[in-house]
Amino acid sequence: MDREVYQKFNQSIYREQLSNGLKVQLLPMEGYHKTYAILTADFGSIDNHFIPYHQKEAITVPDGVAHFLEHKMFEKKDHDAFDLFGKLGADSNAFTSFTQTSYLFSTTSNLHENLDVLLDFVQDPYFTSETVKKEQGIIGQEIQMYEDDPSWRLYLGILGNLYPKDPMRIDIAGTVESISHITPEILMDSYRTFYQPTNMNLFLVGRLDPEETMSWIKQNQEQKIFAPAETPQRLFSLNDPTAHDVIPFRSLTMDIVRPKVMVGLRGTKQFDDGKERLHYKLAIDLLLDVLFDDTSDNYLRLYNNETLDDTFSYNFEMQRGFHFAYFSSDTDQMERFADEVIDILESADQQIEAARTRFEGIKKAELGRLIGLLDSPEAIANRYAGDLFAGASLMDEIATLETITIDDLYQVAKEFITPQGISVYQVVPQHQ
Amino acid sequence: MDREVYQKFNQSIYREQLSNGLKVQLLPMEGYHKTYAILTADFGSIDNHFIPYHQKEAITVPDGVAHFLEHKMFEKKDHDAFDLFGKLGADSNAFTSFTQTSYLFSTTSNLHENLDVLLDFVQDPYFTSETVKKEQGIIGQEIQMYEDDPSWRLYLGILGNLYPKDPMRIDIAGTVESISHITPEILMDSYRTFYQPTNMNLFLVGRLDPEETMSWIKQNQEQKIFAPAETPQRLFSLNDPTAHDVIPFRSLTMDIVRPKVMVGLRGTKQFDDGKERLHYKLAIDLLLDVLFDDTSDNYLRLYNNETLDDTFSYNFEMQRGFHFAYFSSDTDQMERFADEVIDILESADQQIEAARTRFEGIKKAELGRLIGLLDSPEAIANRYAGDLFAGASLMDEIATLETITIDDLYQVAKEFITPQGISVYQVVPQHQ
Repeated sequence: MDREVYQKFNQSIYREQLSNGLKVQLLPMEGYHKTYAILTADFGSIDNHFIPYHQKEAITVPDGVAHFLEHKMFEKKDHDAFDLFGKLGADSNAFTSFTQTSYLFSTTSNLHENLDVLLDFVQDPYFTSETVKKEQGIIGQEIQMYEDDPSWRLYLGILGNLYPKDPMRIDIAGTVESISHITPEILMDSYRTFYQPTNMNLFLVGRLDPEETMSWIKQNQEQKIFAPAETPQRLFSLNDPTAHDVIPFRSLTMDIVRPKVMVGLRGTKQFDDGKERLHYKLAIDLLLDVLFDDTSDNYLRLYNNETLDDTFSYNFEMQRGFHFAYFSSDTDQMERFADEVIDILESADQQIEAARTRFEGIKKAELGRLIGLLDSPEAIANRYAGDLFAGASLMDEIATLETITIDDLYQVAKEFITPQGISVYQVVPQHQ
Repeated sequence: MDREVYQKFNQSIYREQLSNGLKVQLLPMEGYHKTYAILTADFGSIDNHFIPYHQKEAITVPDGVAHFLEHKMFEKKDHDAFDLFGKLGADSNAFTSFTQTSYLFSTTSNLHENLDVLLDFVQDPYFTSETVKKEQGIIGQEIQMYEDDPSWRLYLGILGNLYPKDPMRIDIAGTVESISHITPEILMDSYRTFYQPTNMNLFLVGRLDPEETMSWIKQNQEQKIFAPAETPQRLFSLNDPTAHDVIPFRSLTMDIVRPKVMVGLRGTKQFDDGKERLHYKLAIDLLLDVLFDDTSDNYLRLYNNETLDDTFSYNFEMQRGFHFAYFSSDTDQMERFADEVIDILESADQQIEAARTRFEGIKKAELGRLIGLLDSPEAIANRYAGDLFAGASLMDEIATLETITIDDLYQVAKEFITPQGISVYQVVPQHQ
């Protein structure tokens, strides 16, 4: 078991890759009452085209398989894993993103028993035609419910503009049509390919004894027989890495009162390693704060002339294989909002220069925010993005953020902001 | 400065009431990076009828004044308090409920400077006709936005059924009409009456040195001159304490896909002191888990016959002067859902008896959940309900919860569940 000490934060991470390939990380937190555990498979909604485990021909699975599989994993022949956690006093949950599926629990008691439940239910697939059919109804309703939500439609709309031929344009849960094609066989192919221990990692944070907990995990894993490891053969690649396929504008009408608009920005940079990628991500986070945070001249000007309101938000998302930013607000001036945001992005160089005196404050505020997350076991574990960022933990993120200078902002702005990467999506009230 | 030691949890709370009347509580947490501070005025949306400070005649203020005042406090003549926090690296926020208004920040740096900002902006009112007018537009839009949200309409709908003549039936933010009547004078009357230090408390949790922080707070307060204290004269009382005025059923049509239904239950018990009230609240929380949590036979049966789905939730709310529970789900069988929930409530006695073996597990799970909250400075501070529960902190809640037996459940079920307290509200799709 390796131990990495973060002297500055008075914390240590214990790491080990088990003989079956599972990567385990433990971060004990002195004085805490709760433990949080999260088990992640490197498999998300965009992984819909791959060569299944021990087969030769590539298959394309229906949109929404990763999320469907997440739902089905909890259900076993004669029980539901949720109930087992409940009886042991733990809260459990799961979520699926574009590129990962995670199962988690938090508890103040019976840590090791709950760990067994987690490892056992995720490592024991059970699918029947009947339960698959029932789930198609449940998830179908969930998908329809989201369709009523204008904010969700706005987000999916901009993704459809930014990635018109790539799987990110589809709801992570798929469509009512696509999930109707899911079968137990498709679930099993996906499971065997992506739920191998080599393709998963387990992160525990909070109240725990690293030695005892690691040996408990090993004991659980050593009792099981796993098929020989085989690296998953994904066939995902962006249809057009240059982003020239971005659709510049689309608009949707819904029965709402306030119009909504989102500007999207798709990046095209490729990365050689996760450290470089992390540096880029953190620099872009700072860049967006410089341009748009609520102390910026831009924000105050647009707020005061009612181009945006308190619903304004922006975010940068970076996942395996792609990254993008978005900026949105409710506004009665949808076109003006989009024009202004695009102007600001395209004049980033001057904006950075003008923000020279604000930069250190912005960086300090962002550092403060990340340091604050050190108090949250959930945040530390959920923020961990595995190989994407070369295994960097929150403590490594903080150390990387500290090295970023205002000159880095010019550099990432140049790389990230290109005219062909920009797009606008609107959700417009019916009666306007 | 008093110190209360919670040996079992290895924590202490330091308490002092300052000479101006402000109640201060400090809970240092070893090893934490963040500090969370929350300053609360005992003034919420139901406090719309009172004798203003130093006056003789009672006034009725427009609905939404407490929330409006919260918004206006941040704005000063030449700056906005949000910006001051931002520059000092803190995140700040505020919220208003039926019975309180709270201002808060969290920070990993400049704790004392941020504390000054908090105390100074909340203790320095500044209202002009112009800024009040502008805010009427902003809050008006916020109110309209909520009106588009079917879940919010469902919740407000059941409150309107349970309290048809009391202020809880009105949105905490008021109505577009009611806030149009707010003036700087009304804000100032409300401020002087309810923002007296004697009517406020300050709670700090996380990284802090109790001695240093308390003396910093005192220094801040001693520099200021406060008007003589005067106990706020509220004239709120329930129109019908027996709950015979409850409207049993109403229904609303909206443009949604899935029907929504909520069952409400209004309690009528009066309490002599906060300790008794806390015991009652925690017993009811357990009672509702026994009847409805996702390991109960009731839940499983209703889930399997599709009377409810994953959107099912229930909650018990207890505030100054009133308390109620609600149970809701999206469902295609709205009447059946309501009938089943009411049946379960009205047969609580048999239900408790049948759950005798589950009771200890449910209690342990709830204890585990509360103990887990001890890791969250925000949760500890936000959960603090001041005088309502006789000054009980989260640690006191845990101790009280431990004493609750299954016999207490029979008792609170008898007191809480009465036919006249039950009501149903539906939000129905247009095209059904």
